[in-house]
Amino acid sequence: MNIGFIGLGIMGSPMAANLVRAGHTVVGYDTSAERTDALAVAGGKSAGSVAEAVAQAEVVITMLPDSPQVEEVAFGDDGLLQQGRQGLIHIDMSTVRPETSRRVAQAAAVKGIRALDAPVSGGERGAVDGTLSIMVGGAAADFAAVRPVLAVVGTTIVHVGPAGAGQTVKAANQLVVGGIYGLVAEAIVLLEASGVDPGGGLDVLAGGLAGSRILDLKRHSMVRREFAPGFRIDLHHKDMGIAIAAAREAGVSLPLTGLVAQLVAAARAQGHGSLDHSALLKVIERINQ
Amino acid sequence: MNIGFIGLGIMGSPMAANLVRAGHTVVGYDTSAERTDALAVAGGKSAGSVAEAVAQAEVVITMLPDSPQVEEVAFGDDGLLQQGRQGLIHIDMSTVRPETSRRVAQAAAVKGIRALDAPVSGGERGAVDGTLSIMVGGAAADFAAVRPVLAVVGTTIVHVGPAGAGQTVKAANQLVVGGIYGLVAEAIVLLEASGVDPGGGLDVLAGGLAGSRILDLKRHSMVRREFAPGFRIDLHHKDMGIAIAAAREAGVSLPLTGLVAQLVAAARAQGHGSLDHSALLKVIERINQ
Amino acid sequence: MNIGFIGLGIMGSPMAANLVRAGHTVVGYDTSAERTDALAVAGGKSAGSVAEAVAQAEVVITMLPDSPQVEEVAFGDDGLLQQGRQGLIHIDMSTVRPETSRRVAQAAAVKGIRALDAPVSGGERGAVDGTLSIMVGGAAADFAAVRPVLAVVGTTIVHVGPAGAGQTVKAANQLVVGGIYGLVAEAIVLLEASGVDPGGGLDVLAGGLAGSRILDLKRHSMVRREFAPGFRIDLHHKDMGIAIAAAREAGVSLPLTGLVAQLVAAARAQGHGSLDHSALLKVIERINQ
Amino acid sequence: MNIGFIGLGIMGSPMAANLVRAGHTVVGYDTSAERTDALAVAGGKSAGSVAEAVAQAEVVITMLPDSPQVEEVAFGDDGLLQQGRQGLIHIDMSTVRPETSRRVAQAAAVKGIRALDAPVSGGERGAVDGTLSIMVGGAAADFAAVRPVLAVVGTTIVHVGPAGAGQTVKAANQLVVGGIYGLVAEAIVLLEASGVDPGGGLDVLAGGLAGSRILDLKRHSMVRREFAPGFRIDLHHKDMGIAIAAAREAGVSLPLTGLVAQLVAAARAQGHGSLDHSALLKVIERINQ
Repeated sequence: MNIGFIGLGIMGSPMAANLVRAGHTVVGYDTSAERTDALAVAGGKSAGSVAEAVAQAEVVITMLPDSPQVEEVAFGDDGLLQQGRQGLIHIDMSTVRPETSRRVAQAAAVKGIRALDAPVSGGERGAVDGTLSIMVGGAAADFAAVRPVLAVVGTTIVHVGPAGAGQTVKAANQLVVGGIYGLVAEAIVLLEASGVDPGGGLDVLAGGLAGSRILDLKRHSMVRREFAPGFRIDLHHKDMGIAIAAAREAGVSLPLTGLVAQLVAAARAQGHGSLDHSALLKVIERINQ
Repeated sequence: MNIGFIGLGIMGSPMAANLVRAGHTVVGYDTSAERTDALAVAGGKSAGSVAEAVAQAEVVITMLPDSPQVEEVAFGDDGLLQQGRQGLIHIDMSTVRPETSRRVAQAAAVKGIRALDAPVSGGERGAVDGTLSIMVGGAAADFAAVRPVLAVVGTTIVHVGPAGAGQTVKAANQLVVGGIYGLVAEAIVLLEASGVDPGGGLDVLAGGLAGSRILDLKRHSMVRREFAPGFRIDLHHKDMGIAIAAAREAGVSLPLTGLVAQLVAAARAQGHGSLDHSALLKVIERINQ
Repeated sequence: MNIGFIGLGIMGSPMAANLVRAGHTVVGYDTSAERTDALAVAGGKSAGSVAEAVAQAEVVITMLPDSPQVEEVAFGDDGLLQQGRQGLIHIDMSTVRPETSRRVAQAAAVKGIRALDAPVSGGERGAVDGTLSIMVGGAAADFAAVRPVLAVVGTTIVHVGPAGAGQTVKAANQLVVGGIYGLVAEAIVLLEASGVDPGGGLDVLAGGLAGSRILDLKRHSMVRREFAPGFRIDLHHKDMGIAIAAAREAGVSLPLTGLVAQLVAAARAQGHGSLDHSALLKVIERINQ
Repeated sequence: MNIGFIGLGIMGSPMAANLVRAGHTVVGYDTSAERTDALAVAGGKSAGSVAEAVAQAEVVITMLPDSPQVEEVAFGDDGLLQQGRQGLIHIDMSTVRPETSRRVAQAAAVKGIRALDAPVSGGERGAVDGTLSIMVGGAAADFAAVRPVLAVVGTTIVHVGPAGAGQTVKAANQLVVGGIYGLVAEAIVLLEASGVDPGGGLDVLAGGLAGSRILDLKRHSMVRREFAPGFRIDLHHKDMGIAIAAAREAGVSLPLTGLVAQLVAAARAQGHGSLDHSALLKVIERINQ
């Protein structure tokens, strides 16, 4: 299939390479020429502009930092909606506000372009291994049409609803993840301050109703204060901003999420933006020192 | 072994019966004569007072509602510390403040009585089936001595530290459990308000880093608004009070726990005290209606 | 002075009228022709477009609902920055994100236009009476130049810092106001639930260190549950969104503000958007019913 | 009048001295003999025990650190309820949980002793100057009977309801005060991080709807980071514990109070217990550094 791929960063680059390896024709573009060239080395084709990347594409995948970049690629004069062919399916795999996805989808429909929002979880590791989880919003038929493409980059691929739904599920995921890190951090601080070995205590929690993937994967590293990413605080801070915005757009009040967002913001304000998101523990520690 | 068992309620009654079945001599006492009689029917012996229940005991288990009852049984004129024999091991399986457990242990030591705090999780089901999780604080030797007794009523039995440590771990467990319920509730409210099927959305969360025992066990019932207990809001409210008190005693600040405790209090204020703790969803819903 | 006035709503309309009355030549524009006409009746001149309103102006005042409208008026093809004369001073009296004000100011500087952000407090009453409080960000010289114009519409007029500073101070004001409403609401709920007459209790609070303008002005109406606006929840919800955004832009974590924003969002979700912001009491009440 | 005065600390000592000066016969007792002697030097009489202090008293005032001390003085074998005369009025001016005051009042009634709870605000300065604010719970007739005594130590003296009501109002006061400090702290952190002079910004806030006694009295010292007490964090931490307990006893959920209590706890955990409560600013700062 002819695939345009825009945004060849830490996530996009291995995803595009996996698509090449799977036999697709991938025309890539990134604002960094170096990155675009790297794709060519990996067997893809390099485009000099968004317009060039999308010109022949049946599917365009975007993997960009945030809403402004997605909007520029979608709505720009030389952008996807102006330059893409009728019938093109645009899969935005960036994590952005649900509202952004809905606006892109509406504008795309006017141009005869079909849009899906398909944010992922699983991080760099998942991008390299092609084992991402993908939450897809948009029309069921469009989802079905590109499922084989998504299956190259991910293993868990779920259609969760109409345009924006993928982003909403991603936002829900991130607010729960951020919150559990905060709760585990508070548990550790309480255990340690009470003279209880946190490792043994968390073992008990992990085995009962308090159990979670985060306790399974991160409790030992958290107790040892090892915070190499993984998924960076900076990114989780961005995602909490999206969760807060999504709640606002949906007209709902989420009190815990409101507080969790500020605690993640604190981790960043304290200079831990490049650490793993489990470093939320440092915020709960610091508030006590 | 000669076991005194004080507190024969929903939890204590099946626990005592399991000990009888395992071949122990169990002398039970409850302020309700009816409950005491029920133990006799099950093969135990009924005592007319705490003093009578503890007089011949090598081990005394208490399973009581809260700190005041534990203090009365321990410190009362006819109580355990006055009437129990030297060398007796007192296992308090009630959920109380760590500080209460420490004070009981100190006073017991003066009398030559050895005290363990051993709160449980697993609920009525676990008490009936003998599959409770038990978090034990106190001296390692005392723990070793009574391990076979605890193995009758529970399956996961962990020594987590000195006197009070069992209660601290239980408090940590409950703050994490309460918090995850709150986070899942906020996720559900966000998904539904955004027009996303919450069942499908939570399936994705359950399969990724947001995954938890609570999502595994309760997401379907929460989405269907089925809140038959399980573990009642009233009890979780009591436990959040203990978590807040434990933090105060340990001199630590736990911001999320502070908010979670108020949300659980809201569930109770709204009249949901007898529903399952997953009914925290009703609080997040109501704040939005 | 020749003044262009864009945005003739509940606030802008009486402000423009006051400027007319003070002898200024006011050319007004609103997307609603009806509103534009009303200014003409009041002695101003009506413009058919932003371009027409700003063409001859020495000062342009904008009083618009939110950032998108300000950006459209400022950056649009027929907008202020394209159509305004060199040396023009643009006073944006809308309440928007500090970041919006800074971007407008930067773009204006390129065009030789001087920009001030000058959000107000005091509500419709203050707009009608010309007694608004005005917080001004921008260059001191520009502030000095338009001070006489601002003195027509307000009484407390303070230059608080560079571009965006007016908006930041407004955001700080609104987070404190929203928070105090929440605290007073919690005090009322506690007093009433404890069987204490809230009126008498709040009288004591008002006389001591807990005293505040809000207690002075609103405690009687809050206890009586009278919530006629005043300043609407919808507007305060918008302002809390700005406060949260301002914190994010400044890179700081504000935990109480994070929670207050969600409580105000709840008031809106519960359908109280048109009530006075003191109706935050209804949220604290409802969480308890 | 014959007055027994128990608890001659920083607050009690000058209050007792003021009563002596006003012509009352004051028999004082404190667990510290030194303090008791100091009262004798000031013209009072020193008692060697609670029993001796209350034996001849028509009125007994207690000014003690917390609930356990009040309970010991009230319920102890040589305590007030055992040793006091029928008709005695007990005024507990300590700040304790409303529940404690209600239990003392109930037990007192059985003995023919009339009890009032009468916590104060105004600090050491108010105690020395006799200008305390006093919130009184209990029977109106008893309040009327001792009003002249209270008028010696305070200036604002309000009967707010039945037994415990004084403590409830004090708790409401302290939760509002703690919360406003937190909000002002967040405003300062936002202003400074945004490059706005906090002094000028807070001047604007102080003049509008965000205005408060705390802004009036403390904004300059907070901006200068001057935190000499005043009222110590340690005491406010104790009072927030009472507010949380009072909410629990009243069966209400207070979300902001739950978070404020943890922030005050953080100030203490960070070692600022002896600073003025305005040092809550240090917590909001530290979370951002």
